[in-house]
Amino acid sequence: MQAIVYHGKEDFRYERTSDPKLESESDSIIRVSRTAICGSDLHLYHGGIPDGIGASGGFAVGHEFLGVIEEVGRGVRGFKKGDRVLASCTVGCGDCALCRRGVYSGCLTMTKGGGAGNVFGFSPSLPGGQAEAVRVPFSDTNLFRVPAQLSDEQALFLTDILPTGYMGAELAEVSPGDTVVVFGCGPVGTFAQMSAFLRGAARVIAVDLDDERLARARARGCDTVNSSRENLGERVLALTDGLGADASIEAVGRSELITQAAMVTRAGGRIAVIGVLTEATATLPWFLLFMKNLSLRTGLVNPQCHIPRLLPLIEQGRLDPTVIISHRLPLSDGPRGYDVFAHHKENVLKVVLQP
Amino acid sequence: MQAIVYHGKEDFRYERTSDPKLESESDSIIRVSRTAICGSDLHLYHGGIPDGIGASGGFAVGHEFLGVIEEVGRGVRGFKKGDRVLASCTVGCGDCALCRRGVYSGCLTMTKGGGAGNVFGFSPSLPGGQAEAVRVPFSDTNLFRVPAQLSDEQALFLTDILPTGYMGAELAEVSPGDTVVVFGCGPVGTFAQMSAFLRGAARVIAVDLDDERLARARARGCDTVNSSRENLGERVLALTDGLGADASIEAVGRSELITQAAMVTRAGGRIAVIGVLTEATATLPWFLLFMKNLSLRTGLVNPQCHIPRLLPLIEQGRLDPTVIISHRLPLSDGPRGYDVFAHHKENVLKVVLQP
Amino acid sequence: MQAIVYHGKEDFRYERTSDPKLESESDSIIRVSRTAICGSDLHLYHGGIPDGIGASGGFAVGHEFLGVIEEVGRGVRGFKKGDRVLASCTVGCGDCALCRRGVYSGCLTMTKGGGAGNVFGFSPSLPGGQAEAVRVPFSDTNLFRVPAQLSDEQALFLTDILPTGYMGAELAEVSPGDTVVVFGCGPVGTFAQMSAFLRGAARVIAVDLDDERLARARARGCDTVNSSRENLGERVLALTDGLGADASIEAVGRSELITQAAMVTRAGGRIAVIGVLTEATATLPWFLLFMKNLSLRTGLVNPQCHIPRLLPLIEQGRLDPTVIISHRLPLSDGPRGYDVFAHHKENVLKVVLQP
Amino acid sequence: MQAIVYHGKEDFRYERTSDPKLESESDSIIRVSRTAICGSDLHLYHGGIPDGIGASGGFAVGHEFLGVIEEVGRGVRGFKKGDRVLASCTVGCGDCALCRRGVYSGCLTMTKGGGAGNVFGFSPSLPGGQAEAVRVPFSDTNLFRVPAQLSDEQALFLTDILPTGYMGAELAEVSPGDTVVVFGCGPVGTFAQMSAFLRGAARVIAVDLDDERLARARARGCDTVNSSRENLGERVLALTDGLGADASIEAVGRSELITQAAMVTRAGGRIAVIGVLTEATATLPWFLLFMKNLSLRTGLVNPQCHIPRLLPLIEQGRLDPTVIISHRLPLSDGPRGYDVFAHHKENVLKVVLQP
Repeated sequence: MQAIVYHGKEDFRYERTSDPKLESESDSIIRVSRTAICGSDLHLYHGGIPDGIGASGGFAVGHEFLGVIEEVGRGVRGFKKGDRVLASCTVGCGDCALCRRGVYSGCLTMTKGGGAGNVFGFSPSLPGGQAEAVRVPFSDTNLFRVPAQLSDEQALFLTDILPTGYMGAELAEVSPGDTVVVFGCGPVGTFAQMSAFLRGAARVIAVDLDDERLARARARGCDTVNSSRENLGERVLALTDGLGADASIEAVGRSELITQAAMVTRAGGRIAVIGVLTEATATLPWFLLFMKNLSLRTGLVNPQCHIPRLLPLIEQGRLDPTVIISHRLPLSDGPRGYDVFAHHKENVLKVVLQP
Repeated sequence: MQAIVYHGKEDFRYERTSDPKLESESDSIIRVSRTAICGSDLHLYHGGIPDGIGASGGFAVGHEFLGVIEEVGRGVRGFKKGDRVLASCTVGCGDCALCRRGVYSGCLTMTKGGGAGNVFGFSPSLPGGQAEAVRVPFSDTNLFRVPAQLSDEQALFLTDILPTGYMGAELAEVSPGDTVVVFGCGPVGTFAQMSAFLRGAARVIAVDLDDERLARARARGCDTVNSSRENLGERVLALTDGLGADASIEAVGRSELITQAAMVTRAGGRIAVIGVLTEATATLPWFLLFMKNLSLRTGLVNPQCHIPRLLPLIEQGRLDPTVIISHRLPLSDGPRGYDVFAHHKENVLKVVLQP
Repeated sequence: MQAIVYHGKEDFRYERTSDPKLESESDSIIRVSRTAICGSDLHLYHGGIPDGIGASGGFAVGHEFLGVIEEVGRGVRGFKKGDRVLASCTVGCGDCALCRRGVYSGCLTMTKGGGAGNVFGFSPSLPGGQAEAVRVPFSDTNLFRVPAQLSDEQALFLTDILPTGYMGAELAEVSPGDTVVVFGCGPVGTFAQMSAFLRGAARVIAVDLDDERLARARARGCDTVNSSRENLGERVLALTDGLGADASIEAVGRSELITQAAMVTRAGGRIAVIGVLTEATATLPWFLLFMKNLSLRTGLVNPQCHIPRLLPLIEQGRLDPTVIISHRLPLSDGPRGYDVFAHHKENVLKVVLQP
Repeated sequence: MQAIVYHGKEDFRYERTSDPKLESESDSIIRVSRTAICGSDLHLYHGGIPDGIGASGGFAVGHEFLGVIEEVGRGVRGFKKGDRVLASCTVGCGDCALCRRGVYSGCLTMTKGGGAGNVFGFSPSLPGGQAEAVRVPFSDTNLFRVPAQLSDEQALFLTDILPTGYMGAELAEVSPGDTVVVFGCGPVGTFAQMSAFLRGAARVIAVDLDDERLARARARGCDTVNSSRENLGERVLALTDGLGADASIEAVGRSELITQAAMVTRAGGRIAVIGVLTEATATLPWFLLFMKNLSLRTGLVNPQCHIPRLLPLIEQGRLDPTVIISHRLPLSDGPRGYDVFAHHKENVLKVVLQP
């Protein structure tokens, strides 16, 4: 089959690679109909994957995809050939001590080799879905049926970044009436903003450097701050009677924004970090966190937990995830898609690929 | 001053009564600018108050009101003469074991005499606000400042029924993606429906017998069922793939609707009852509750807990409580307002009075 | 094999019945080493099962058992022949909408026929474990490995009544410092009392009519009330400065005790009902529930949720479930065990059977 | 009156200072009967208070104290002269936006000047309780009655470090069955360990460098690790089947222990930091926090929230806070008490002073 194949730093190629095959009774093979490039794919693209995740090359990349089941292992109970499905980007076995606690991303069965061995497209052992077909392990746990009335594009982002944005609002415990600061208006930041409103936020303050992205956030009902020329702290205090925000969500991946979040969040508030920092360590304003009784949470997404909540919201028209799509390309143009997305060309927000 | 004064069953008169005076250092006197008739006032009106609440007559009724502070006791710290404020319908001292747990409605200080002695307008010891002026005890705990940009009508329902409707969604633990059945499209049911959406419900199914009320619910985004001619159970199952609703809110006050709620709610779901039953006991389908692992919650509202969340939502335009107002009358027409409201005349939904 | 076989009201016989066989790839066959008689078995014994659960006779009864795996279906991933295991009394598929929400007792796959078809030993489709061997469906979801250092008796009650007692404390939201009233000092009541302390209760007030049971409760650290001659309400008020209990747990199964629970629980408190009422309906003191903002929860147990928490507590010696065992009999004496247990003979508390 | 008076770094003197006086109607004056030296007093003693908290000298220090009310302001409702009371170490007004959310430590009224102006004994504006008498603002919010049956020493630590230790277990969301690592066996670590068991932990692993402290932890039921010669990570994995701890509590105040906590806590686990770091920033292992979905919480204690839960546990004999007392000195020996405590002399654990 054809796929986007990893060959090293900034060297992702559209080429022939071996077809996926059932390797265990719980596997299924999905014929991919839509797939997307995610910000975390760029960590691999830029060579920024920390040691231990291993990336020896020659495997299909990508972890956001959906399609139609082509083949199921005989142990799969809930799905059959022909079902239209999407897969969680992180794969869990469903039965281990961590999966039972809802932390599929830490699945003990899948990560025996260590690291993020259970995210599609980061290693040869679990090739990705920017491909014509892909193998999904533990299908009953990781596949979700796509309702007939939803288009591929409406459902696609349930695989990762819509739950990631929602997780930001959940980790930040966004509750009715809250004022929430969201750092970043990229795809994940956008979904974090929408999720904050969905959970009843009275006000979402979107922060970015890009006026066009801020204009879109404003159109979604956010207050906005261009932090390159406005004083975020003063704006937040002015909007909250001097109290500060109830919660902040970092959706960029820069440690200095965690510090800014600590500054604008009120005592007793919550900070969620869903942006992926490239550094292994982060220096945080501990005295502030302490004096302000702040909580700080981060983590890999577990779409298995969020899809049952988010899917009906899309079905009922209360969430439209397609608003972030800026580019639709054939899979064969994937390498160009990466170039555009990685280097912020053409006002890109999200690139969707079609095999 | 002039007020609507209780004289017995269906005998509420607009007449002169004694002016309120400061009785303790934490009291304040409010000059009322808007007040409203509430469904629970009708229990008094119809003589349906259970024994022990006592209603010996001759006192101003009403517990939904706002206005401007005319006088404050010297122990009041957070408010001063001239502040525009609203008062919680249930009054707590703020310091007792129950107030500290957020159950102001059970305030040990205020209810020493037993019963609902801490709701305005149900006894001579705490006269109501359908009057030109009213005394509010424990002002720092029970008063809330009305922001200048809000009209009286926008803020008025924070005193009781907006928090009551919201409490329904909270007791039913409405969460993002849920399907919620709301029994009743009256003022409280309307606010319960709006609150369910506010907390992220994917679908709200509004149930009533009145097609006009149902049409309004539909305009707010609800699915609707006229239970006089449609089969509620079948509709809910059809809309939820046979699963049932995640949560149900009874906002009418009839025990058979609790049974219906148990029938349409899925296993592990939650039922909140915010309608006020007139009977002292209710016969419930226990075997269903047991086999379906349902939770059942009810109670008096504690606006003190909800106002800080709901007020910013009104300020930001995300909640518009004025949609329920059907009648605006001078206070002197209060007796007619009661007649209209009690007997469902003139398509009444909510009556607001102006002293 | 030999088993205790249902033949009708008060007619349970020890006799030969057909051996269990693997029926699906996720099944396993357990060679039973210990099993116990549960209070809910008595509903079947006394013929008190409500319509629809169906009990056409000729099947092995019993849902509390453990043993050694004799055979596993080829779809079973986490267990193999020779593993010592216990099974949850309620069986879930692990993948349906309700199992994913932790409500295994309502498993959509297992209960397609309706009712409690997913509890062992209540119907021919899922024979019970008061037998030499038993078939367990969906093994990866419903089996739990027994650590080598635990005896059979230490682990046996994890199958049902220990989680049931714990569920009582959980549904009643017992929290550190609480005063908790537990109605009933039978096996489930005992575990509810122990669980209340485990969750940090400052005081547990055990209520019963039997002085011997109350003496044992006192030895466990409970305050006790013999409700046949003491005034429960006065005692609770005296012990709680007039406030009432924070939570109550009904572990008997009589609706009038729910009313008593409502009377002794403070405003804003929680009531859990884990006793199984034999009536289909219950008449409850609604006005009390309403005026006191009480929550009321009940349901079938889901041991799958509680075993991971309770097992380490037994391993560490912080919970000793064997204290309830009063009788140890060979399986062949099962019918006598039922007679003793059903008719409260010989000071019985819990009967364990050994095949 | 006589008091321990701040004069600068390591210069605390027992000397005459001015008597406290009522300054506002909500104030009360407490005649101190017992007071204690706290680890956070040492930050002032060692001159380690960060800028902005200000400490211009000449004021009584100390924030752990109890005694008898000598005088109350006329706005005080719940207390009168002669009541035996303890005071929360952090003072809140009870009515501001943060106090209403339970974050008294961030009280907007008390901290108008910024910083920790609302902890007793850190500034001239709120002198401390290592004195014969002390003024307590907002008495109804910050005072708690001491039950007659409790000794001064049993109640004393409710003012700060018992709630601080309990807060550690709460922020770490310790739940029944959990394995919890507690870094530090000093007074706060001891209370964190006791609180973890109180909340149902199956196993508490206490970490320290001091064998005597570890022996005491073992006697309380903890597993122990002397991290100077044992490998903590290996021990935790061995005890948890390779999974890691469910929660960790840092009760020392060193950032490298937060890193260790991240290493020994399982994916999806929680870390609470109740030790006070002296540095303004901390460098944290972000990649670990991210890959393991960890939550990290810290903050000043709010005893007002915890006292209602902890007090009944002491009354019922389920918590004995006096176990940490190693030294009892007259107040006049306070300077020596500081010297002993600050320099770890005489096997000191906790110093109690008696005026």
